[in-house]
Amino acid sequence: MAPKRRNIELTQVIEWADGKTSRVEDYLSAEEPLEIRAGRRSLGVTLRTPGNDEELAAGFLFTEGIVSRQDQLVSVQPPGESDVERNLVRVTLSPRARLNGGAPRRFSAGSACGVCGKASIDQLRRRGLRRPESATRFDPEVLVQLPEKLHGAQRVFSRTGGLHASALFNPAGELLALREDIGRHNAVDKVIGWAFLQDLPPLNAHVLLVSGRGGFEIVQKTIAAGIPLLASVSAPSSLAVQLAREFGLTLVGFLRGRRFVIYSDQQRIAVSTLR
Amino acid sequence: MAPKRRNIELTQVIEWADGKTSRVEDYLSAEEPLEIRAGRRSLGVTLRTPGNDEELAAGFLFTEGIVSRQDQLVSVQPPGESDVERNLVRVTLSPRARLNGGAPRRFSAGSACGVCGKASIDQLRRRGLRRPESATRFDPEVLVQLPEKLHGAQRVFSRTGGLHASALFNPAGELLALREDIGRHNAVDKVIGWAFLQDLPPLNAHVLLVSGRGGFEIVQKTIAAGIPLLASVSAPSSLAVQLAREFGLTLVGFLRGRRFVIYSDQQRIAVSTLR
Repeated sequence: MAPKRRNIELTQVIEWADGKTSRVEDYLSAEEPLEIRAGRRSLGVTLRTPGNDEELAAGFLFTEGIVSRQDQLVSVQPPGESDVERNLVRVTLSPRARLNGGAPRRFSAGSACGVCGKASIDQLRRRGLRRPESATRFDPEVLVQLPEKLHGAQRVFSRTGGLHASALFNPAGELLALREDIGRHNAVDKVIGWAFLQDLPPLNAHVLLVSGRGGFEIVQKTIAAGIPLLASVSAPSSLAVQLAREFGLTLVGFLRGRRFVIYSDQQRIAVSTLR
Repeated sequence: MAPKRRNIELTQVIEWADGKTSRVEDYLSAEEPLEIRAGRRSLGVTLRTPGNDEELAAGFLFTEGIVSRQDQLVSVQPPGESDVERNLVRVTLSPRARLNGGAPRRFSAGSACGVCGKASIDQLRRRGLRRPESATRFDPEVLVQLPEKLHGAQRVFSRTGGLHASALFNPAGELLALREDIGRHNAVDKVIGWAFLQDLPPLNAHVLLVSGRGGFEIVQKTIAAGIPLLASVSAPSSLAVQLAREFGLTLVGFLRGRRFVIYSDQQRIAVSTLR
């Protein structure tokens, strides 16, 4: 067995390629929250790929203006092994550090077990997030046509090449709305907000397609909107897959050409018998 | 003159292509903060591309669990024309809305003039951010080699394809550190944190290269670290360019093959006379 590397995770997925379905193993980029704490004070929580966490903490404190010189950062303690400590960097600051500086909280922390993917998921459960209720089975031949439909519609809107896109499709694969934004999560909010303002929900027979990566935030928003299938042309993160599996969202990645990967709840996709 | 579209901005840039330099016009994706407010209460601020702002507000409130049904969102007022109102969506919520829901504050607001790019920049000035002090002139022939050096080093580390990369180079174009992360800003924090922990700053003769887009946050972190040149293989946002120009950071985009675009402070790059 290879030594455990925390920046990648191996997982079982289902690959659909030109009508043929097979079980394969896939590497995921690990995504877990990291909390930076000075004494009892939380300075921030960020979703990151584990590894080089002392550097991340130091760089965060420096670039956010909390410390400006090395002697203001008295110590940085790397994460420990336990569940409580593995996503926690403890720092000691000198009195000259500017604790009232910028330091945005990117993500809310707070759980008895420390900060971890599980705690993040539990928090969403307490917020009332539920499994998308859907009896729809999606046709793979419809799915593989969606990226070209999104790109075709994008060609009409885009002029700068710097935008993320998000599109909502009905089960027949018809594009209902496309929105672009410099922020991935904003493009998703705009499409879902469009449906919300039309009083279109429940979107329980619909597909959301995003141009970039399917991360934790995007999966969370998709579930909150009751959409049963999230597809992306790129790779999801480990925490995105974990969240999709916990809540029963069908998560599809690498939707390119006549191929895609199913990370969770494959029964919503009408595939042939698995080999 | 074409009607003003707020989602793109036209700007003057300098293009370097295989040794020849010329002034050209370039379209930028607009990036501006948007505040969502219920009465006097700020529910969140996000950096977004202007347009479809009511949808963005509705989608944000819905996917973050503040409203769960349309009747809980009594009204959504689109942004106005004035400086105070153009980045503000006012919403009226029913008493059933869950104001204590998730709703992260992505970005700090608060200025007499409302939320705008200028206010965001002024806030950084108050934090003490200054022009990177540097006498270095960078050689274009060195710059164009950086992406391949980054990709070469990435091939050693990456296995999943889902990560952003950030790399620090010295003026000779030697790679000092490469870090990858699922979060663009984390990859930057890790590289800068590496230098900080080595007590390497000032980084005033160095180049930071990022694999993705150069947005507001990345530019802010680069300036905070005193790095004079930020390069990206992709397009920057309008607010990133505005911030780079205000603080005198040299911002390079579309660094691909033997071509790049200079968005600000071109005198730090040793280019031939402009045609």
